[in-house]
Amino acid sequence: MHEASLRVLTERKRDGGELNEADWKSVVESSLRPDADLAPVAALFMACYFRGMTTEETLALTRAMVDSGETLRFSRIQNGVDKHSTGGVGDTTTLLAVPLLAACGEYVPKLSGRALAHTGGTLDKLESIPGFRSTLEPSEFERIVAKVGCAIAAQSSKLVPADKVLYALRDRTGTVPAPGLIAASIVSKKVAGGASRIVYDVKAGAGGFARSVDDARTLALSLLTLTAAFGRQAGVVVSDMSQPLSPAVGTGMEVMLARDLLAGRSAAPRLMRVVRAVVLEGLGGRHSPEDAARAYDRALASGEGLERLRAMVEAQGGEGGALSRLQPVAASRRVAASRDGFVRAIDPVLIGRTARHVVNEAGPFAGVRLLKIVGAEVESGEPVAVVYGGDDVSERAVAAAYEIGAEPSADAPAVYEELALSIESTK
Amino acid sequence: MHEASLRVLTERKRDGGELNEADWKSVVESSLRPDADLAPVAALFMACYFRGMTTEETLALTRAMVDSGETLRFSRIQNGVDKHSTGGVGDTTTLLAVPLLAACGEYVPKLSGRALAHTGGTLDKLESIPGFRSTLEPSEFERIVAKVGCAIAAQSSKLVPADKVLYALRDRTGTVPAPGLIAASIVSKKVAGGASRIVYDVKAGAGGFARSVDDARTLALSLLTLTAAFGRQAGVVVSDMSQPLSPAVGTGMEVMLARDLLAGRSAAPRLMRVVRAVVLEGLGGRHSPEDAARAYDRALASGEGLERLRAMVEAQGGEGGALSRLQPVAASRRVAASRDGFVRAIDPVLIGRTARHVVNEAGPFAGVRLLKIVGAEVESGEPVAVVYGGDDVSERAVAAAYEIGAEPSADAPAVYEELALSIESTK
Repeated sequence: MHEASLRVLTERKRDGGELNEADWKSVVESSLRPDADLAPVAALFMACYFRGMTTEETLALTRAMVDSGETLRFSRIQNGVDKHSTGGVGDTTTLLAVPLLAACGEYVPKLSGRALAHTGGTLDKLESIPGFRSTLEPSEFERIVAKVGCAIAAQSSKLVPADKVLYALRDRTGTVPAPGLIAASIVSKKVAGGASRIVYDVKAGAGGFARSVDDARTLALSLLTLTAAFGRQAGVVVSDMSQPLSPAVGTGMEVMLARDLLAGRSAAPRLMRVVRAVVLEGLGGRHSPEDAARAYDRALASGEGLERLRAMVEAQGGEGGALSRLQPVAASRRVAASRDGFVRAIDPVLIGRTARHVVNEAGPFAGVRLLKIVGAEVESGEPVAVVYGGDDVSERAVAAAYEIGAEPSADAPAVYEELALSIESTK
Repeated sequence: MHEASLRVLTERKRDGGELNEADWKSVVESSLRPDADLAPVAALFMACYFRGMTTEETLALTRAMVDSGETLRFSRIQNGVDKHSTGGVGDTTTLLAVPLLAACGEYVPKLSGRALAHTGGTLDKLESIPGFRSTLEPSEFERIVAKVGCAIAAQSSKLVPADKVLYALRDRTGTVPAPGLIAASIVSKKVAGGASRIVYDVKAGAGGFARSVDDARTLALSLLTLTAAFGRQAGVVVSDMSQPLSPAVGTGMEVMLARDLLAGRSAAPRLMRVVRAVVLEGLGGRHSPEDAARAYDRALASGEGLERLRAMVEAQGGEGGALSRLQPVAASRRVAASRDGFVRAIDPVLIGRTARHVVNEAGPFAGVRLLKIVGAEVESGEPVAVVYGGDDVSERAVAAAYEIGAEPSADAPAVYEELALSIESTK
């Protein structure tokens, strides 16, 4: 009975028609049945890839996905700010933006995911800290946010259970890159996370989800519209992922870098450009742009951001002082420039894969450190990167990721676009 | 492992690429595993719907499907002729063409299917004859063909087992109407059936598979090419299914009509036009067009066609003389013309559905008999059809299927096209 109905919906989409709210609800509910036949859903998703989805359809699917599980509701914290990145290589942004937003006075109940393919996952990074727990009950999650200002926890399986099933289906059926399905997956999880304001960091470039800035902008607008339809405020940053964003790529390596940047002991201008944009979008709901910029600068300069990161790590079970003691593994190999010239490009996928490989082999404090980024002038034999914990194959892979030429290339900006769509404040 | 590979194939087709012979083999083999995950195949088939399939791809899929099971090989009969119809309403063609081909001296090992949706199935029709058995072991099938000249049997599940799985998948995932998948499904079964020459009757019109003559012609050419690639001779008839082909629609009703037509006791010019085309295509491999036409006329006029039908029915377990004794159920309702004028159209789907309904309710000798066909002049109140075994709803449905207007409409020809593609004779 429900199979016949799914077939009819699939045929309608195949023939260029539109599915209504009840239809999408039926798709999601059918998919969650224990004996679900997912083949018609796979065919429907492929038809969505070719036919596209209207805004109404994407909204209906998102709503049905949110309704498939629980939605977090906070009693002690108000106007929570969450953020989401579409994923990338050396995307250390969350580890910086979350404590900085807390240092600016926001509540940041941040739900995170794990690494996918060559991209890193915030939970994997934080779990490099001895004792750190990312699985938090909703009450503990809220208590930590209320006390510290922020917490970073794994998405509970009670939120949007449909996404788990449907994402796995898309992953094995070649239907991941349908824009409506992408947007519904992202927004449903953030909406269920209960924050009032959501900042999306949409990556554009070979190392990210969207290959082109245009695709990223289209996704960004869709995320804004959908989020607003749920009565939440939204901001978007479209940022560059044509090269690794951070000079440190790994898990613990990125935690150490975040710590050092918050302590003012390191510099990473491209990364901090994105972090600033994300924090300012996060503050945009309650601050003027000038106030937001001032608050950001103060949170960084005062060391308050670092304090919030430390407090959060300890509240989530990290050993006292563990953050200060982290250091990379001793074994390291320098990667030398193959010629005189300028770094023209650094392949983010190759760097991301290599970092994952060495972390798998040599633990969370292995990884890749980029000494020279795109635009840097180098001499033949000069070190451009260091591989911690890797073998000679990893060293060659990192060397191969560097394109060095006689002339400098035009450098892509770190941030392409910052967009916000705010509904009327309810204050 | 094989899931990842199926995903890669699905992505390639999605992005406009081509799958090679090994790829299609892997699709078919994966689908037949007991624990098969068919969702990626459903997505692949939907991508085939949108992207199409090259001739090479369709051939590779067909070959993989044939190789999924056994192929009949005959030792006692040579140059067997098989036929296939894409299905329709009142398509009594097989019941006539098969014994007539046998009467012309051909061996006709005919494998048939059952009714689908509103269309009839030859096996359902023949099983209205008391005692008739359509399930035959290959050896018995060949023995009957060798003795009688023809046999009509159910496709064994050992032939093309992949079609059973893949057709069921297509049926529930809205991926039936992809031309390459249609052609592969049809040709694989006929090739596995072991005949040397195969005649395809491709229906065009609302009651058939292809809606337009152009679509039917495209499918016809694809069937010819594929069949030739397997070293078999092929002929195609593109015939009309914009109205029921036969004046009798049902199961036993069609058997009775075939009996009466072969006995020269009834007339059905449109149907016989298609039967003649199919028989002539079937004879085309070994006869000149003139010889074939003469043989057909003689088989019909001499009563030899009727003899072969009788002999086949008896050889397949039908009670002696059963064919002569068949008659429609007593209860009948006349359907009256709603106005003076001309029959402009008869909706084949509505007639087909009504016939299936009354057969389900009142048994195999219920059905619909059309007294007036498209082009006939009628007076208000004059009977245009008779419903055997139906209630007043069925009567109204048949009345509604008739469109009667003041002016006659242009009548579609029964046969649009006859095409043949013969490989070099091996004689």
